[in-house]
Amino acid sequence: MNLNFKEAIEILERTPQTLECFLSGLSEGWLKCNEGKDTWNVREVVEHLIEAETNNWIPRLEWILQVGENQVFPPFDRFSHLNEKKEQALDQILMEFKSIRTQNLSTLKTIINPEMHFDLTGVHPEFGQVKLSELLSTWVVHDLTHIAQIVRIMAERYREDVGPWNAYLGILNRK
Amino acid sequence: MNLNFKEAIEILERTPQTLECFLSGLSEGWLKCNEGKDTWNVREVVEHLIEAETNNWIPRLEWILQVGENQVFPPFDRFSHLNEKKEQALDQILMEFKSIRTQNLSTLKTIINPEMHFDLTGVHPEFGQVKLSELLSTWVVHDLTHIAQIVRIMAERYREDVGPWNAYLGILNRK
Repeated sequence: MNLNFKEAIEILERTPQTLECFLSGLSEGWLKCNEGKDTWNVREVVEHLIEAETNNWIPRLEWILQVGENQVFPPFDRFSHLNEKKEQALDQILMEFKSIRTQNLSTLKTIINPEMHFDLTGVHPEFGQVKLSELLSTWVVHDLTHIAQIVRIMAERYREDVGPWNAYLGILNRK
Repeated sequence: MNLNFKEAIEILERTPQTLECFLSGLSEGWLKCNEGKDTWNVREVVEHLIEAETNNWIPRLEWILQVGENQVFPPFDRFSHLNEKKEQALDQILMEFKSIRTQNLSTLKTIINPEMHFDLTGVHPEFGQVKLSELLSTWVVHDLTHIAQIVRIMAERYREDVGPWNAYLGILNRK
């Protein structure tokens, strides 16, 4: 296992400030573009990250600690953020993400003792038995996957503009 | 064409500070990992970005302005940074990237007038005729592809640790 509690937190605490650095102040062209019909734009990705902070990571970690395998995780809708159209500026959404993440990391450090809790298990509605360490690793890789998604969305905007160089640009060839 | 000079610069000027936000202070475990034999670690990606600042973007833009199609671009080695093993701390390498990028963006704004120069052409050793606008778009997407590579390298480290969730984590399934 490569998961290490301290190192996992290093990523989780950097994601909001990294997105702020990269996205704050960008022109609408970058913020509104997506990868085609039924795909997300940058704002929708950040809204999804906030949604997961609220309904996924900490609630499920607490579920494992408190309920264990006695009951399956309560379901949640990974797409629910698409139904509540927020009118806030992106900067406000980024700030909201930073604030809820900070709060959640503080909770994480309070409730989890890696040596005692990493092997505890819960029941995922689809996968069956899952370990707390797997859920925590997934939180980290979920951040990474959505950072990758954001830059991929933006790269898509220049797909035609790069001309023959698309052959060398991996991001345009990993669908 | 989606390329817009001002918007392209918005990305180019954010990449160094974004990488600094995300990478500065990370544990060695995150900085030393890679995706397997003959793949780059995070430090090697940043060294490659510096290499491209030195030998690729501005030199080729200037080549198009000054030489045009009279002579093919001088070749350069995309892997040369792997031969000069630098011993600097990652923070120094990130600072070097930021410094050379700032300098190059200042040059870019001085030498390029989008309305006059975007359609100028040069000759790529492999692709033949290329436009200045394609080279500039490629500079932007090249940043995005290497940000995606960095988070992909890091995600790979937890591939086994996420257990059954790998099914939902796109970053682990886009090889």
